[in-house]
Formats: sequence, C-alpha cells, structure tokens
Amino acid sequence: MKPNFSLRLRLFNLNCWGIPYLSKHRADRMKRLGDFLNMESFDLALLEEVWSEQDFQYLRQKLSPTYPAAHYFRSGVIGSGLCVFSKHPIQEFTQHVYTLNGYPYMIHHGDWFCGKAVGLLVLHLGGLVLNAYVTHLHAEYSRQKDIYLTHRVAQAWELAQFIHHTSKKADVVLLCGDLNLHPKDLGCRLLKEWTGLHDAYLETRDFKGSEEGCTMVPENCYVNQRELEPFPFGIRIDYVLYKAVSGFYISCKTLRTTTGRDPHSGTPLSDHEALMATLCVRHSPPQHIPSPSHGPAERSPLTSILKEAWTELDLGVAQARWWATFAGYVIGLGLLLLALLCALAAGGGVREVAILLWTPSVGLLLGAGAVYLFHMQEAKGLSRARAELQHVLGRAREAQDLGPESQPALPLGQQEGDGTEEQ
Amino acid sequence: MKPNFSLRLRLFNLNCWGIPYLSKHRADRMKRLGDFLNMESFDLALLEEVWSEQDFQYLRQKLSPTYPAAHYFRSGVIGSGLCVFSKHPIQEFTQHVYTLNGYPYMIHHGDWFCGKAVGLLVLHLGGLVLNAYVTHLHAEYSRQKDIYLTHRVAQAWELAQFIHHTSKKADVVLLCGDLNLHPKDLGCRLLKEWTGLHDAYLETRDFKGSEEGCTMVPENCYVNQRELEPFPFGIRIDYVLYKAVSGFYISCKTLRTTTGRDPHSGTPLSDHEALMATLCVRHSPPQHIPSPSHGPAERSPLTSILKEAWTELDLGVAQARWWATFAGYVIGLGLLLLALLCALAAGGGVREVAILLWTPSVGLLLGAGAVYLFHMQEAKGLSRARAELQHVLGRAREAQDLGPESQPALPLGQQEGDGTEEQ
Repeated sequence: MKPNFSLRLRLFNLNCWGIPYLSKHRADRMKRLGDFLNMESFDLALLEEVWSEQDFQYLRQKLSPTYPAAHYFRSGVIGSGLCVFSKHPIQEFTQHVYTLNGYPYMIHHGDWFCGKAVGLLVLHLGGLVLNAYVTHLHAEYSRQKDIYLTHRVAQAWELAQFIHHTSKKADVVLLCGDLNLHPKDLGCRLLKEWTGLHDAYLETRDFKGSEEGCTMVPENCYVNQRELEPFPFGIRIDYVLYKAVSGFYISCKTLRTTTGRDPHSGTPLSDHEALMATLCVRHSPPQHIPSPSHGPAERSPLTSILKEAWTELDLGVAQARWWATFAGYVIGLGLLLLALLCALAAGGGVREVAILLWTPSVGLLLGAGAVYLFHMQEAKGLSRARAELQHVLGRAREAQDLGPESQPALPLGQQEGDGTEEQ
Repeated sequence: MKPNFSLRLRLFNLNCWGIPYLSKHRADRMKRLGDFLNMESFDLALLEEVWSEQDFQYLRQKLSPTYPAAHYFRSGVIGSGLCVFSKHPIQEFTQHVYTLNGYPYMIHHGDWFCGKAVGLLVLHLGGLVLNAYVTHLHAEYSRQKDIYLTHRVAQAWELAQFIHHTSKKADVVLLCGDLNLHPKDLGCRLLKEWTGLHDAYLETRDFKGSEEGCTMVPENCYVNQRELEPFPFGIRIDYVLYKAVSGFYISCKTLRTTTGRDPHSGTPLSDHEALMATLCVRHSPPQHIPSPSHGPAERSPLTSILKEAWTELDLGVAQARWWATFAGYVIGLGLLLLALLCALAAGGGVREVAILLWTPSVGLLLGAGAVYLFHMQEAKGLSRARAELQHVLGRAREAQDLGPESQPALPLGQQEGDGTEEQ
C-alpha cells in the first residue's frame, strides 16, 4: 500500500421500521429509501428492522445498479431484520445470534422471535481490510422498569466479544446499528471501552442534523410522542462507531442525520433518523504512538465498567435462577393437582368439575415446564457472560499488579493502538 | 521471536461420558481421569460431555496444582459439556453456540437441551498466539436414517466459519473434540477443507493406539456393541486437528489413543477413547512456499464439497418449510376443532364429550404452534448457512474465471499457506 494512501468512506445507517401490516406507509417509505440510496450512492448502506424479506428483495432489485453486493442476515423465527447494500464486493460475511434476547412469553414485545444478531461483512478496499458490523439490540420498552436491561448488557458484551475476536486482522472496524442504548448506558460504555470503538457523533467536527445527534426525535410524525416526553430533544440510540488499527488513522469528516422529515418530501423515511457519515482512512507513520486519551491512563474506567456489568449480570443470574426455582415449584404443584383431579374423576363425586379443571392444570404444567427450561437456559447464558467478564477483570488486576510495563497486554480494547485523529 | 524457536505441545482430548445418573461409574472414572491428567501433566486437556458442573468443579480442584487455568463453557439448558484445563494462563476465551442443534421434542435424544457449542481459548506461549477450539457436534443416533445430518452439516459449517473468522491473527490453530463425524463424512471434509486444518491421525508418523485410530471401539465395555456391529474396528469420531499459519511449521510428533481400557487399571475412562498428541511448532523461514498438496490444485475438491453441503442444506430448508407448513395446517384444524367443541358444549347435546375433547385439542393447537415456530427458525438457520456457502461458491467461481493469478485470494481455507510438514 502506498504511504500516501487515503480512503473516503460514505456510510448510511437506518432502522427502517419495516414491520409488515403494522408500520405505517411501509411500501412508500421503502420506495423512497431506495430512491434516496440510489441518488446518494454511499459506499455502504446498513439497515435494521427490514423484517420482511420481500422488502429486502425489493430493495436489492432497485439498488443493484448502484450497490451490486447485498446480504440479508436470517435468524430466529422472523429474521434479524438486518441487511446491507454495498458498492464494493463483499469478500466474506457471517453472523452471530445473541444467546439472550428477551422472553418468548412476551409475545407483544416480539424481540425473542426476531433472533437479534450482529452481522459481519469483510470488505477489501484498496488493500485495506474493512470489517463492518451491523446490529440491533433488544428494544427498551420502559426506561423506568426495564426488564430487559440484563439481556441488553449481555448482548452488548457478546457484541463486543464478537467484534474483538473477529477483527484481529482488520485494518478498519466499523459498527453501525440501533443499539437501543443511550450514550451513557452501561451497555454502550462497555461496548466502546472493550472494543476501543469511537463514536462518530462525538468525534466529528462537522455535524449537521437533529439536536444532540438524536436518532428518535419528537418532530418525527411516526414516533410515539408520549414515550419521548422525558427527552425534549429526543434520544440517541443509533450509532456509527469506528476505529482503525495500528498503522492507520481514521477520522469522521462529516456526520449528518435526518431531522424527522424525509430529505426531499415532508414525511420521514422511518420512525428513526438516518445517519450519514463520511469517514477518512489514511496511512499513519509506523512510529505513531496512540494519543494519551486512549492509553493505559484509561484503564480504570474500563475496570469499573466491567465491574458494573458483572454486578448487573450477577443480579440477572440470581433472578433467572429464582424464576427457574419458582417454575419448579409450580411444576410440583401442577403434578399434585393432576393426581388429585384423576382421583376425583375416578371417584365420580365431582366428576364434571374435575374434567373441567383438567385443561388448565395440564396447561399450567406445560407452561411451568417451558418457563423452567427457558430460565435455566437464561441463567446459563448470563453465567457465561459473567464468567467472561470475571476472567477479563482478573487479568486486568494481574496486569495492574505487575506494573505499567505489562499493561499493553490488557485490556484488549485499548491494545490495538488505534490511530483515531480529529481533523 | 528467535529464529530457532521451537515449542512442544502435549494435548489430551476425551469425551468423558459424564451424564449424571445415567453414565456408569461416573464418579470413579472422574477420579481416575483426574489422577491420570495430574500424572501426565499435559499442556492442555480438552474435555467433552462433562455435563455436570459439579464434576468440573471436582476436576478443577483436583487438577489446580498441575493445571492452574480452567474454564467450563456454559450454554443451553444443561450446558455445553465442554471444559478445558491448561498448564498455561488462558489469555482470553469465548464461545459460539450452534444455531441448530436437533429438535426440542426429541427429548430422549436430549441434544437440543445441551446447547452444543464451540469454545475458544487464546493462549500466548513464548510469543506465539495459539487459538485452541473445543467442540462437540450433534450425536448420530442412526447412520442409516440420520435425521440430524443437515443440522450436523450446518454445525460443521458454523464451526469452520467461527474458526476462520476468529483465528486470523493466530499463529497456531488447534481443534479438539467429538465431531460425531466419520473422517469421510461431508461435515468433516467441509470443516477440514474450509479451515485448512490437518488431521493428527493422518499426519503423524508415530501412532500407537486403537486400530485405525478409532475412538469408539468394541473392546470398550461401556460401548453399545450393537451400534458398532457394522464397524469391526470401531469408529473414528474424535479428532485432534491443527494448522500453523504462515511463518510457522507444525507437525504431530506422536499420537496415542487409549484402547478400550484404562491406561493403568482394567476399566476404561469413558465410552470414547482418549487422544494424546504431541505437537511440535517451529519457526519457518519467511520464504516458505506452501507444499503443492495445499495449493490451488486442491481448489476443486473444496468447490465440490461446498456444492455437496449446499445441496444438503437446501434439502434441509425444504424439509423445515414443509414441517412449518404442515404445522400451519394443523393449527388451522385445531382452531376449527376448538370452535366446533365450543358450539357443541354450548348446545348441550354431547356436552361431556365436548369438554373431554377440549384438552387434546388445546394441546394439539399449542403443540402445532411450537412446531411451527421451531421449524420456521430451523428454516432461517439453514438458509443462513446456505447463503454463506452460496457466497463462497460464487467467489470461488469468480476467482476461477479470473484465472490462476487471482486464486490466492480464494478459497480461504487454503489461503493461509500453512506450513504443515511431516517429520
């Protein structure tokens, strides 16, 4: 690669709100999204909530002259909703489905059925290896009483680990998507600290768009205004995150968001705002030393975030075990009830009542069995993430005990000496 | 690293057959396994089917002086059964749970409840990065009518992809485990061709152990003799696979297996045979050219294997969709039946019969709903693997069209110029 190598990357990210039968003006919005993407000709367009594969096929056909490469990430019962369109050939792709993703009995929330995942694309651009990730984490239905908090933290950890382990040979790492996390939320901090990814909104000097970079804003007519009441400007839950690995500089030249309206006509493309970023990647001299802000001095925030996440997951494990135990008792009770009903039905006395109660008690037994199995699996999934965090914390402590000269080996998010610069 | 760098690695792999209440002499076998591992002091011991976490904790305590690092991979309802004991510090670990792993209603087979997975350990040994993987794929209950074949092929592909994407910066890659695949089975060929991993049994010049390297042998008193009838010497389904990436040579100095008996007393450690390998890693000169046997000439077997796997998965997708459609019809039928029963119960004529039939029809409805959801998810999971295979095939074709000079870019299993040598 030439020493004066320079690459501009234009990216588009949007949560498309494409729920068949439920999302308003879906077909019209998909059409306008296709027109916009064709007109703008980004290098990479990463989309979430394209729940219908027909919508993906429609977009694929429409966009094929401008974006010859495309992929839809299939998972769960419904699908992950993730897809990508690329101007450049996709060398490789794969995906990782999150172990935990809500509860199957919360049918009205539906996340469990989607099989939320992270998709990975590997692109080779002018000799540079780009790993682009697209994801969508579990939705937050109530900020005050968020029953999915632990699952979202576990997802953020799995996402960070997936990026960490699959991007070791990448020159540039890029993550776009709807994280359903506010910038200061535990999951967001954990992800950024562990991977060393930088937030385009915080890094760029040229931002135009919604107030405070929000990606769900009250001006958007599709947004539930009541949900946004506590946030006058809206919330920022969609992100463009990036880093360059040793040998490269990366910077966000410009970042734009839509502002609750379609860029051309009056109605928005989705209930979320689109993010449009221009990134610049350049060769850095080999003697480049990481800026002090990303050196060992930042180790303690990572450790405290890891501890915070560990505590959250530990609470989750205890809760999951409580539910499994509770379901175990209900199973016992259900079996007793069934035995009693059998005896009553055989005895003849209150036969009809016994037969009538048969259905609910069988239902109770099956339901409790399912709940038991589900929460046992939840406890295992959370324990797994907790063990990984514990190991990282242990290694961080060892590194601290050994003194600063051993520090470059840990933590890993800081290890790569990313050459982020502001221009 | 010094140019005369050399590393010897002593490995142990065993499927421990540790099913609580079901496996014979479990406690005694675990005790003897611990004694053996302590005495032999391997670098790494990788175990499968340690289903009880108590057994892991017992071994951990017993082995801690010799193997200070250990990890148990938790997943599914029961657990993945995978664990590792290491003489050297474990730098990092993570795991990937297979998307497809049998059917929840095949309770007597139980695989679905285990959450079969692949575990990854990263070790740093004398400046060398070693990625060690341990796995256990879905069991084969009938070779003549193997209803899990598609799932096992999908698992082999996911395993190969996980290794491929997470080992890009590793110097040495090692995979141990019970693949439940015979050496010539599609899944085994797919895995080896796509990752470029070499089979210790086929590579070593110093093998001692069971006939033909079998890891389930009729001499073992715990083995179901009837199942092994078609195979007089037994079957080889447990493996030590390895490769070194450019810059390193790796060779298998010795490979030993147990032969249906405990190395010291008369009864075996498990129903599987243990594998014990001594690998030697050396620095290779930078000008090392891959041996012709792993060069572009081998491209066509990979392509044909990919096609074969694609066909298998395609059949699986069709079958999963058929089951989902069938379950859809049953749901419709169940709803009709329920409506009819409601009408009959209200009418009064055959009220008791109607109430009696209520339970089975609600059960039918719920059961069919679960089957529908499961097979929809199965179809998505298989489609995902099929799409990945299709993409790789497309890229292989493109590379072939562009001529031999572009070939080093693809296929990826061959890309790494592994320096395997026989000594």
